[in-house]
This record gives sequence, structure tokens and C-alpha cells, in this order.
Amino acid sequence: MKTIGIIGGMGPLATVHLFERIVLRTKAENDQDHIPVLIDSNTNIPDRTKAILENGESPVKELRKSAQILEKGGADFLIMPCNTAHYFIEEIKTSINIPFINMPEETAKYTCNKYGKDVVVGLMATDGTIKSKIYEKYYSDLGIKTIVPIRTQEKIMSFIYDVIKKGNYNMGTDLLFECVAELKELGATVFLLGCTELSSAQYLYKLEGNFINPMEVLTERAIIFAGGQI
Amino acid sequence: MKTIGIIGGMGPLATVHLFERIVLRTKAENDQDHIPVLIDSNTNIPDRTKAILENGESPVKELRKSAQILEKGGADFLIMPCNTAHYFIEEIKTSINIPFINMPEETAKYTCNKYGKDVVVGLMATDGTIKSKIYEKYYSDLGIKTIVPIRTQEKIMSFIYDVIKKGNYNMGTDLLFECVAELKELGATVFLLGCTELSSAQYLYKLEGNFINPMEVLTERAIIFAGGQI
Repeated sequence: MKTIGIIGGMGPLATVHLFERIVLRTKAENDQDHIPVLIDSNTNIPDRTKAILENGESPVKELRKSAQILEKGGADFLIMPCNTAHYFIEEIKTSINIPFINMPEETAKYTCNKYGKDVVVGLMATDGTIKSKIYEKYYSDLGIKTIVPIRTQEKIMSFIYDVIKKGNYNMGTDLLFECVAELKELGATVFLLGCTELSSAQYLYKLEGNFINPMEVLTERAIIFAGGQI
Repeated sequence: MKTIGIIGGMGPLATVHLFERIVLRTKAENDQDHIPVLIDSNTNIPDRTKAILENGESPVKELRKSAQILEKGGADFLIMPCNTAHYFIEEIKTSINIPFINMPEETAKYTCNKYGKDVVVGLMATDGTIKSKIYEKYYSDLGIKTIVPIRTQEKIMSFIYDVIKKGNYNMGTDLLFECVAELKELGATVFLLGCTELSSAQYLYKLEGNFINPMEVLTERAIIFAGGQI
């Protein structure tokens, strides 16, 4: 089996959850049936949204450092559980010689296969992911319409940063569902959990409904690409 | 902060849980407050119990390989969430130049500090850990008495291998508590979860009682040694 390399730390809990999903969804009878995974939970990577929108420190140097550590350590391909960081994926790819599975791109393909081209995707993500149109690009390439929150974008940012990243889980999911309600009003039929902290929220709060979870899409793709069984 | 290196994959779910405990127990306001962690979930490491008791393939080569990958990748010290694998710790240490926190040794110290020397520790662990006296050694160095299961050792092995490692969680905890009952009859006052699959079981089933969880002890020691806050 191939070794999966994970560029992690953005945030660390999302990295835990991706690793856990890979382990739980792999069909295995003993340790040796599982897929080898190498993880760099690099918590020194500067904030991606700040870099994109506020001219903050670029994360590229640390992202490349992690990618190279993983390649040298024996990873056969890379994945990265941070949607916003995919803004920099081409710059990371030029620093390594192994494949890199692109989470937003795979998620757009998955949406198209599952719901068809007439679906309307409501995007929930950081300001960085929304304003840099990471998902919009991959969806529009497939002819799929996307909608972004207007009134409630700051609510979803607060949910990501104040509830999940700070571990204030008892604050619940009200902020998230205010955003879902607005997207529904604007015409969305499915809701993209376009930040890995939102993927984590789905596992933590056992959210059900028409949510698309890129971390789950990535988990499936990575297991299959590595030669594991689902 | 120092980078924690984790020799993982024994099993992979125990590795997930140690990583999760480190993230959840670190006081952090944002990604950058967390501790950098490098993990090699090496699922090619041969079964430790088979190596110790049945002359099976030695895991030392793969353990050393992981240790060296982590050291080269920037880990400042190592930890290993597998009790049985600590049988080989001295052989791993000679292949690296960074510190290695010994989980069973730290657990014995923790037990002594928390319960005093008059405690009687009932050991629940794999045949490999029990027969090679990994815990017995560290406890007896501190003057603490240990008791091992007789009738129910095969029950705890079945719980570790058939319930946890195979992911048959709906089988519940009956096998574990048959072992606890025997140890209590034999005079134990606290119960060591001396296999990381049993540590995982405590998190999965939210077990309460006089359990000593080496993974939790290791989590605390590693966070503090790395310079993080609990």
C-alpha cells in the first residue's frame, strides 16, 4: 500500500479528524491491514485567511517545509485538510515530486456525480476561501452554481474561530444554522462545509442534512488511491 | 515549543486517540498555540506480542525506521502509544539521538504519586506485555505490588484483538469487566489499562472507575515536556 502524507496543523483538530476518518473507514482486521500514514501537524503555518486578505505572513514557506518533510519521510502522495490552504496548492506542488490530491477539486467532482449539474451549492467557509473563490472556480468549471452568505458570513467566521478553533463546543451550532438558513433563502439546495473546522463540527455535533463534507470526500479518495479498502 | 514525534500504527486508532488527547488537552486559542506533532503511523510494524512470545518477526527494524524518520523530520523527542512495544525501547533508543519518554515508567511514577506505595495494581494488557513483565518491573522498582489475571487473561486478549482492533465496538465491554472482576477478587484496588487499545476503549465507552490510563499520563508528560500548557 502507498503511504499517505498529511500536511496538518490547520487546525490540529481537523488533522486528528481526517486521520481518524481514514482509520475508521478502512476495512481492516489487524494493524497491518491499515494504510501507513505520515502526518506533519505543523502548527507554525501562518493563518491562511490573513495571508490572502490582509497581506499577512505567507504560509507557503511552512507548507513547502511540511510537504518536503513528508516526501523525504516516505509519503507516496499528499493531502491537506485545510480548504483555505488550497489557495497555495500550485506553489506547494512545485516544491515536491509526488502527487497531491486536491480536496476542493475532488469535492466539486463528487457533488456533480451525486447531485448532478442543477444543484445549487451554498458555500460555508472562511473569508479567505470565499473571497479567493477556491470552490467557486472548481464548481463553475463543472457548470455548477454556487451561492455565498451575505448577512451571515461573519457568523460562520465566528463559528469557525470562536467555537471550534477555541474549543468552545458548548456554544452549540446556532451560528452555523443561521448561515444555513440564509443560504436556503438565497436558493441553495445543498450546503458545503468548506472549512475543515466545519467538517469537524459535523463529526462533533453529528450534523445531518444536505451537507457536503470535503473531509469525507478526501478520506474516500485517499484510501482508494493508497490501495486500501473501504 | 518542541516538536513531539509519535511512533504510531500500533494500532492506528490508538495513535489517533493519543494525537487527539494532545490537541484537546493543550490550552490554545488558535492553531499557533498548539504543539507541533510529527506522526509516523507505521502499519508495517510486525505484531509485538507474537515477536515476544512466539518467536515471530521482530518489530525492531520497523520501530527504528520510524524513530529515524521522525528524528530526521524534526522531532525533538519521541513517544510511542503501544505498551507492548516498550519491551524494545532500549533497542530503539540506541538508533536515535533525541530523548524518548517511556510510557510504562511514567505511568508507574504517576500511580505512586497519586495512590501511594500501598496500592495494588491489577494489570490488564496483552500476553506480550504481561509475560515480559514490562509493567511489573517498573512497579516493583517503586515497591508497588501488581496482580495479573489468570482465568480472564484470554478474555482481555479477545477484547483487545476481536473488539477494539477489529472495530466490533457494538460487542461492548463485558470481556473487559470480567477481567476487572477477577482482578478485584485477587485483591487489586486500581486497574491498569496497560494496552493502548484499552486506553482507546476508555475514551470510546467513557469508562469510569479506578482505571489508570497510561495514554493519558503520556499525554500530560508530552505536553509539558514540549513546552505546551495544560
